[in-house]
Amino acid sequence: MRTLSAFITSSTSFGHCFFHRLTLRHSHKTLASPLAPCFRRHFTPTMAAPEDSLRKALADKQSEVENQGNQVRSLKAGKAAKSEIDAAIEALNALKLQKASIEKDLQATLSSADGSLNREAFRQAVSNTLERRLFYIKSFNIYGGVAGLYDYGPPGCAVKSNVLAFWRQHFVLEENMLEVDCPCVTPEVVLKASGHVEKFTDLMVKDEKTGTCYRADHLLKDFCNDKLQKDLNITAEKAKELKHVLAMLDDFSAEELGAKIKEYGIVSPDTKNPLSDPYPFNLMFQTSIGPSGLIPGYLRPETAQGIFVNFKDLYYYNGNKLPFAAAQIGQAFRNEISPRQGLLRVREFTLAEIEHFVDPEDKSHPKFSEVAELEFLMFPRELQMSGESAKAIRLDEAVAKGIVNNQTLGYFIGRVYLFLTRLGIDEKRLRFRQHLANEMAHYAADCWDAEIESSYGWIECVGIADRSAYDLRAHSEKSGEALVAHEKFPEPREVEVLVISPVKKEIGLAFKGSQKNVVEALESMKEKEAFALKADLESKGEVDFYVCTLGKNVSIKKNMVKISKEKKKEHQRVFTPSVIEPSFGIGRIIYCLFEHSYYTRASKAGNEQLNVFAFPSIVAPIKCTVFPLVQNQKYEDIAKDISKSLTVAGISHKIDITGTSIGKRYARTDELGVPFAITVDTTSSVTIRERDSKDQIRVDVKEAASVVKEVTEGLRSWADVWATFPHHSSASADE
Amino acid sequence: MRTLSAFITSSTSFGHCFFHRLTLRHSHKTLASPLAPCFRRHFTPTMAAPEDSLRKALADKQSEVENQGNQVRSLKAGKAAKSEIDAAIEALNALKLQKASIEKDLQATLSSADGSLNREAFRQAVSNTLERRLFYIKSFNIYGGVAGLYDYGPPGCAVKSNVLAFWRQHFVLEENMLEVDCPCVTPEVVLKASGHVEKFTDLMVKDEKTGTCYRADHLLKDFCNDKLQKDLNITAEKAKELKHVLAMLDDFSAEELGAKIKEYGIVSPDTKNPLSDPYPFNLMFQTSIGPSGLIPGYLRPETAQGIFVNFKDLYYYNGNKLPFAAAQIGQAFRNEISPRQGLLRVREFTLAEIEHFVDPEDKSHPKFSEVAELEFLMFPRELQMSGESAKAIRLDEAVAKGIVNNQTLGYFIGRVYLFLTRLGIDEKRLRFRQHLANEMAHYAADCWDAEIESSYGWIECVGIADRSAYDLRAHSEKSGEALVAHEKFPEPREVEVLVISPVKKEIGLAFKGSQKNVVEALESMKEKEAFALKADLESKGEVDFYVCTLGKNVSIKKNMVKISKEKKKEHQRVFTPSVIEPSFGIGRIIYCLFEHSYYTRASKAGNEQLNVFAFPSIVAPIKCTVFPLVQNQKYEDIAKDISKSLTVAGISHKIDITGTSIGKRYARTDELGVPFAITVDTTSSVTIRERDSKDQIRVDVKEAASVVKEVTEGLRSWADVWATFPHHSSASADE
Repeated sequence: MRTLSAFITSSTSFGHCFFHRLTLRHSHKTLASPLAPCFRRHFTPTMAAPEDSLRKALADKQSEVENQGNQVRSLKAGKAAKSEIDAAIEALNALKLQKASIEKDLQATLSSADGSLNREAFRQAVSNTLERRLFYIKSFNIYGGVAGLYDYGPPGCAVKSNVLAFWRQHFVLEENMLEVDCPCVTPEVVLKASGHVEKFTDLMVKDEKTGTCYRADHLLKDFCNDKLQKDLNITAEKAKELKHVLAMLDDFSAEELGAKIKEYGIVSPDTKNPLSDPYPFNLMFQTSIGPSGLIPGYLRPETAQGIFVNFKDLYYYNGNKLPFAAAQIGQAFRNEISPRQGLLRVREFTLAEIEHFVDPEDKSHPKFSEVAELEFLMFPRELQMSGESAKAIRLDEAVAKGIVNNQTLGYFIGRVYLFLTRLGIDEKRLRFRQHLANEMAHYAADCWDAEIESSYGWIECVGIADRSAYDLRAHSEKSGEALVAHEKFPEPREVEVLVISPVKKEIGLAFKGSQKNVVEALESMKEKEAFALKADLESKGEVDFYVCTLGKNVSIKKNMVKISKEKKKEHQRVFTPSVIEPSFGIGRIIYCLFEHSYYTRASKAGNEQLNVFAFPSIVAPIKCTVFPLVQNQKYEDIAKDISKSLTVAGISHKIDITGTSIGKRYARTDELGVPFAITVDTTSSVTIRERDSKDQIRVDVKEAASVVKEVTEGLRSWADVWATFPHHSSASADE
Repeated sequence: MRTLSAFITSSTSFGHCFFHRLTLRHSHKTLASPLAPCFRRHFTPTMAAPEDSLRKALADKQSEVENQGNQVRSLKAGKAAKSEIDAAIEALNALKLQKASIEKDLQATLSSADGSLNREAFRQAVSNTLERRLFYIKSFNIYGGVAGLYDYGPPGCAVKSNVLAFWRQHFVLEENMLEVDCPCVTPEVVLKASGHVEKFTDLMVKDEKTGTCYRADHLLKDFCNDKLQKDLNITAEKAKELKHVLAMLDDFSAEELGAKIKEYGIVSPDTKNPLSDPYPFNLMFQTSIGPSGLIPGYLRPETAQGIFVNFKDLYYYNGNKLPFAAAQIGQAFRNEISPRQGLLRVREFTLAEIEHFVDPEDKSHPKFSEVAELEFLMFPRELQMSGESAKAIRLDEAVAKGIVNNQTLGYFIGRVYLFLTRLGIDEKRLRFRQHLANEMAHYAADCWDAEIESSYGWIECVGIADRSAYDLRAHSEKSGEALVAHEKFPEPREVEVLVISPVKKEIGLAFKGSQKNVVEALESMKEKEAFALKADLESKGEVDFYVCTLGKNVSIKKNMVKISKEKKKEHQRVFTPSVIEPSFGIGRIIYCLFEHSYYTRASKAGNEQLNVFAFPSIVAPIKCTVFPLVQNQKYEDIAKDISKSLTVAGISHKIDITGTSIGKRYARTDELGVPFAITVDTTSSVTIRERDSKDQIRVDVKEAASVVKEVTEGLRSWADVWATFPHHSSASADE
């Protein structure tokens, strides 16, 4: 079963650091971090030490306080001298102060390890801006909304459309992939074959009185985190146990989860009622196709199955040649038990998936050299097991050393790295994490997740898996259609094949009604077994032979079967291709992009913090704004002419002829991540302002649209433009 | 209720003609029609005459045959002379021959009126090519498929993606529309408010023994068409009646449909079993949101509702200004009872919808002048009622004469015309048909469908409706959220308002427990009623007054209510905006585009017909192919270099280095509608071939990619390129 763990936030989230994008193409400036202080921390064993020793010190101090308290009481009971009692009380108070100080240290250690306060403040700041500017909207909000369903508003929708267009350019066009577009409504038979009907589940518990449903692992996770962060009195041993539970969460069976919930006395968070035992809930939305109610169907949980069932046609379309890749962009659905984490865990989302079909005996990639020298953060299995952090590794080294299973997998890891960083994902907060052996499906050869660090921790945004031949085999078996590839040999090859010929007449005489079972059992022997039998028959003449369909041994004689190897000519090899699957959670990538692009800077007057999204042009929802500096018919006419030229050039833009101050108009569009602003301040020339540096150049009216086109489409860098045109001092603009 | 009739093939389908696209930008050639003879025919009353008179002549001749047969029998019985009997038999045979001749004529008239043979042959030819080249694939085909679900294969998917990109450019970017992206899964409350839960239904009948479901109107329609086309013996009157039934089909109630089915003895088409009475079946796919099963939901039947529920936020985003338009592209779902018509009636489809919000008191459009002079086929209500055909009308004339209700509606009709024709829809097979009064919802101000003629008849592909304030009002009412706009007055306006002040004390004394009902009834009077009451009270002192919540009259006295008009200052007008909605069935447009682009031409040897899709570059799935003329390492290297340049330029293309003859390679890509082919036949220069003319120019290797970029992106016409570069005789290419 494949996507059980896909798109579930990794339980191995190792801490958080909020860099904004530091590099501006042309500028010497380094922007201030949006949240000071910026910190980086990992839950490595050595880091756990101060917490442990503080917990121990706290427990010791608590004993001392109790002992001293007892002493004060016994002095009072024994009517000791006032001076003696006072001294003992003073000592008690000192110990209490010491205890409070340790508590404070522990509290500080816990909150800096967790970072939750800073993370939440940062997330709130981003979300406020995103919601206020309608990047996204809670769906059906006027009816109270539905958990896990969000709309993209105008700027969000434009960002999404830009990300998808770039995805098509970067993957489909670049690799000549075969893009397909299949329905969301899928009949049950397809999802039975893929395993989703049986296994696409999460474990759920119910409030025994109200019937409210919760994800069992979420309740246990919340309980452990809460204890660890807020209960200063748990022992170091208890803390260790709770951390172990958090690490094991994804591996727990229903029984193990249920036992832990009972052991810790976890109850319904809203009502404190008792909870049911955990049981599996299928996460697919169910429906029925056609009016009779006889064709059960589901909303697809992924787009990949639409490609697998079309393999035969696509292989033919590709001239019956391997390797080739098919791709699909589309909606997928997941009826989450209780959606959390905003845009990261939703009930409907856009996936972009690639299925690259390849000969299992040759997983080299002709274009691997183009990505071989890339170096970025990788987090192989071994580093995770030994408690180390991700480290920068060159891709060719990773493949050569077998860290990454094969060249094709490595090629896609490299292409995904390029895709994400070109979109604006901060490479310092991007890592490729290899699945641990127990995370991977048994059939998978290797699997890596592109994880992006956000205020929610490290988020799986792209999964890149070598799924071997599993999916095609599953559909071949269920549908009876051979989903295979052929390798024609240049010349026929001579091969030796095993030939087992049961002598039906003799077997019929000996076993009558069971003849068929015996014949089948003999024919299904593998080579080794067959030749062992042959040797036994030759030496003993008669051998006991187990027939599983009869459940017993029968006695086989030498004259009942002939076993030999014969030479045969083969003209082709027939095999099930392996599939390497990069699968992109588009909504997750976009949300992380929002966080990585966001920063604040002081307004000119210094009295407020202004929000900026530092989107690269390729992502920006609007590429350019056009502002007449002041309300004036001539300037307005010029602004409208420039707007027309931009429309013809296909550059999305916005014109703002309100009398609002130019500084406010800049600030408004910085908040939408608009990279360039054209301001009409004379009738012959205009200024063009770059968002992050706030630098301005002066350009002839007629050139304005084409300069903006060149810089937004990457034909020219801002640095180049900056070097070419006269600079304009911002003193004239009231920014 | 809105979309009941949307995207249902009009029952007023007036005949068919298969033109291919005749115009090639630079060429003097006129391509032969793919199907000869090309015919155009309309079911106008005058055209029905030959059919009527033939049916009458046939009935007369049949009587004559019967009379003559009787005469022969009586002569034989009366033992008449052999010569006399022979003469009578000869006369009988002559009459039978005459009857056969009339039957033949009638048959010919019917099949030419229907055109079904030619239509079906044409459709089969297009479909064969589309399916063979994987433009589309039956979804889940290896499992037998599901009716009404199709995949777009690689070229179909590319065409779709191109159509949507052009839609975004032509509408969203050009008009600065606010694009949003809402989920498919929709909670019931939203679709209750919109009316879909109650009224989005088709009438269904069930086979009483097997339970198989059929659309009631389809069965009746099939019965009538079958009788009309195949039964030569029905009378002219019966034929007229059947035609009337066909015309009325969309207006029949469940009872009327049931009565007709009984009257004609229609039975289950597969089993001949009796059928149930017709009953409504809701066409929405139902599901359940969340694990509790307590939130019923549906897959959206249209994307529009997502926009309406967001009106308040979008209005705010637009600076609280009207007019503005929001747009959405996305999947919509319709659980058809028994899908037919291939790609035209499917269970899941892509809609692109625009909701243009406008002040109901000002529906002018600032850019109307840009489309005012367009002239194209329009089919206003009056022409349909009088049995005439669509005719070319200038848009400004249509608006000025009130044929089209208002400028904004007219503007969108013009923009839709430009959109469709630029995509490659043949303007001769495109008409804008106005809804008849009985087709429109009661609240709609006007509604026009862009209908495209295909082998299935005239197909509604775009609906352009002025829906007044219906949708926003419905959601305001159900959600309690005011979905309104404000017009701030430059200066406060003095208005007279009606003031009704019931004197509660007097009413309380008189009516005790019913006080509240009486007060509410008085307060809810409109101006006219209130002043009539006032006059009556003044003249009579006491008046009978009906209180509907009590269901009876009460006696109102003069001292119980004060009625007056007072002057008040108003600072703004608050109103519900009207919405003008162009709604595009993308799959239908694409299918019609396939038919309009398809033609065949003889191969060079003349021994086979080759298929061509004459897609404009903007639509073509692949813009260019690159072929080395012969297998040769040098040519291959050049082809690969050109391919790289095309990738950098963002031009989708295909490289084919197989040794297949160049003529076959051209033919293969003509079938995919690839507009240009670069053939490497020397190491310094290459040829570029245009698909429809087969003309070739010779271009330097280094220029090839940029020339193709220019012509495919419309920066340069082929005519211009043809005039610039040396021509290449195709003699050298083995085409």
